[in-house]
Amino acid sequence: MKINENYLKMPGSYLFATIGRKVKAYQAANPDAGIIRLGIGDVTLPLAPAIVEEMSRASLEMGTPEGFHGYPDYEGYEFLRSAIRDHDYVGRGLEVGLDEIFVNDGAKCDSADLSDIFSRDCKVAVCDPVYPVYVSSNALAGRAGDYIEEKERWSGLIYLPCTEGNGFVPEFPEETPDLIYLCFPNNPTGGTITKEQLQGWVDYANRKDAVIIFDAAYEAYISDPSLPRSIYECEGARTCAIEMRSFSKNAGFTGVRLGFTIVPKDLVRDGVSLNKLWLSHQENKFNGVSYTIQRAGAAVYTPEGQRQTAEQVAYYMNNARTIRQGLTDAGYKVFGGENAPYVWLQVPAGMTSWEFFDQLLERANVVGTPGSGFGPMGEGYFRLTGFGTYENTLAALERIRKM
Amino acid sequence: MKINENYLKMPGSYLFATIGRKVKAYQAANPDAGIIRLGIGDVTLPLAPAIVEEMSRASLEMGTPEGFHGYPDYEGYEFLRSAIRDHDYVGRGLEVGLDEIFVNDGAKCDSADLSDIFSRDCKVAVCDPVYPVYVSSNALAGRAGDYIEEKERWSGLIYLPCTEGNGFVPEFPEETPDLIYLCFPNNPTGGTITKEQLQGWVDYANRKDAVIIFDAAYEAYISDPSLPRSIYECEGARTCAIEMRSFSKNAGFTGVRLGFTIVPKDLVRDGVSLNKLWLSHQENKFNGVSYTIQRAGAAVYTPEGQRQTAEQVAYYMNNARTIRQGLTDAGYKVFGGENAPYVWLQVPAGMTSWEFFDQLLERANVVGTPGSGFGPMGEGYFRLTGFGTYENTLAALERIRKM
Repeated sequence: MKINENYLKMPGSYLFATIGRKVKAYQAANPDAGIIRLGIGDVTLPLAPAIVEEMSRASLEMGTPEGFHGYPDYEGYEFLRSAIRDHDYVGRGLEVGLDEIFVNDGAKCDSADLSDIFSRDCKVAVCDPVYPVYVSSNALAGRAGDYIEEKERWSGLIYLPCTEGNGFVPEFPEETPDLIYLCFPNNPTGGTITKEQLQGWVDYANRKDAVIIFDAAYEAYISDPSLPRSIYECEGARTCAIEMRSFSKNAGFTGVRLGFTIVPKDLVRDGVSLNKLWLSHQENKFNGVSYTIQRAGAAVYTPEGQRQTAEQVAYYMNNARTIRQGLTDAGYKVFGGENAPYVWLQVPAGMTSWEFFDQLLERANVVGTPGSGFGPMGEGYFRLTGFGTYENTLAALERIRKM
Repeated sequence: MKINENYLKMPGSYLFATIGRKVKAYQAANPDAGIIRLGIGDVTLPLAPAIVEEMSRASLEMGTPEGFHGYPDYEGYEFLRSAIRDHDYVGRGLEVGLDEIFVNDGAKCDSADLSDIFSRDCKVAVCDPVYPVYVSSNALAGRAGDYIEEKERWSGLIYLPCTEGNGFVPEFPEETPDLIYLCFPNNPTGGTITKEQLQGWVDYANRKDAVIIFDAAYEAYISDPSLPRSIYECEGARTCAIEMRSFSKNAGFTGVRLGFTIVPKDLVRDGVSLNKLWLSHQENKFNGVSYTIQRAGAAVYTPEGQRQTAEQVAYYMNNARTIRQGLTDAGYKVFGGENAPYVWLQVPAGMTSWEFFDQLLERANVVGTPGSGFGPMGEGYFRLTGFGTYENTLAALERIRKM
């Protein structure tokens, strides 16, 4: 019997699962501690009225002979894909067809699965620091080589450092990658990319025959109108880029599970349409998303849904600005938090980011995410999110100030 | 740039997607044809009242500050896992722990993904005919070798013929497999396995150090109390078997998307706990199931949910018996349909099962599934399901009789 040995190469459990267990243990040992969670990036506001009303209606509809829906389409219901296309793309002057949209049960699954359509020996580039799923999914698939403990890096990956020096926007690597993961507005740094910089990456990918997997999960948090909200705003992106979107952060769907991926029909590699490959992946390995949940997603695009979810985004961005200001006042150096819900702060000199995590948990009962959990260039940094309640955000800052 | 070439080896699109497209094309060309679908195994009864009421309630709950739920647990909420453990296992005298249950968004995803925790060169055995996902997922992962057109088989798989001769229960193969997929009550043949026969496979797997992936999606359709409803009824199964279950057929959740997988902690291979590997898979590549949907799943286990879903199962089994009887009266040789919702019929002599598919679609406007779509030993057979409405089932039989 042989198991997949790539699982044994993993240096530890999934970052957010580790944090969850640490916090659970601390809470068990200190039952009276009023822990404030600004770590895992989970939202806190209840779902908007327009969404729960539609989700409730669709649930009852499933109990009627006329309204019952069985197996959903692999790509998602047309009512949802139309709303996505019209609102997020065609309405913004971008060309995306109905059959280029693949609805999923949250962007994390596709983040992890998209690389399946590429060969095992394909060379992958990731930012450092980075959302861990891009790395772990490629590691489990055997595409990352071995984990080098002392470097805290995988031998087979190309790392693109994102530092204060380059404004948290990566430069082109020396070695040519086949697959490039980019996420803007960025998780974890809260950094953004200008349209010119993103155009540079699109041109690079087309020149090098590479494919960009662009994670636009946080596009709703962009307030600067000059920043790109979709990679398809760049010329030539349809021949080199896949885009991932999520309802988790723009509509609070972390517990609802809904997202989508765009694979343009113009994206062809080795003479093969990647759109067709991904459709084949979905038909063979996926069975679509719940009717009720897709109806909830469509409700996001109604006028009430748009207004109500925009208010939630504004609420969280107010938190992010509050954190940014509060930490600055307390003497911390901070980044992000302006067009992204994440604030990236420098931990006090002489401390690792996990030491800061422990200190924050024990002295302030505040949970954040240690920067090194996102990669070695994240060492010395720490992520806080604007997804808490306003009251908790203020309380957390007060506690950090007194720490 | 290199794509995953295993995708190019696939002989065609996913079986049920192909059927869907064929039927769509026929319907477009014949808009007046009243097509009756007894093909894809999709259910037709609306969800039971206890389920939609709870799903609707949980939807509204997500709109309240107290009832909002963010990221779900990777393994599923404890309220659902407790209900599963107590009702399906402990209540039937079987040992299954809470942390051995992994809730998923429908059994198909796990059917396709479970092999990820095994090595690429692990030898896979599948029944022939077989639910296509076991084969295609292993083929896409590079574990099936090449597709040999003239044999209609993959060079790297071990096929276990299930024929009239062996009562549609496979015999042990000559070559030793590492991974064995078994599904009973069987899709597509409607066949069952006795406890002694299943015990034989459990003993074989333990002896050979193999792992059985047991698909028990249709256990609710068993009426004969001597037949095993879980592989854990067999002694030693906890050291060799993973079990998959689905809410699709026992509670009509095809459009709701919910299932679960049992990976016992006693299941160890190469010195590694497969339970831990699968937890790692879920943490890294999955983000849990919607709160609303898990509440709907828990409602299945309430007294009303149990009563109402049992009525639905009885309704579909009455259809299956009706098909069995009707086809027998019309001179067909039939199997299954007694402890399974599927009826497996022999197509008229001199016809392929795809020819029979076309004839049935064109002359009777009835959609079934050609046996050869499930593997070469399925050639000459055809699958009809009891999942239609009773009225349509009667009408379909009437049309087949006159065909």
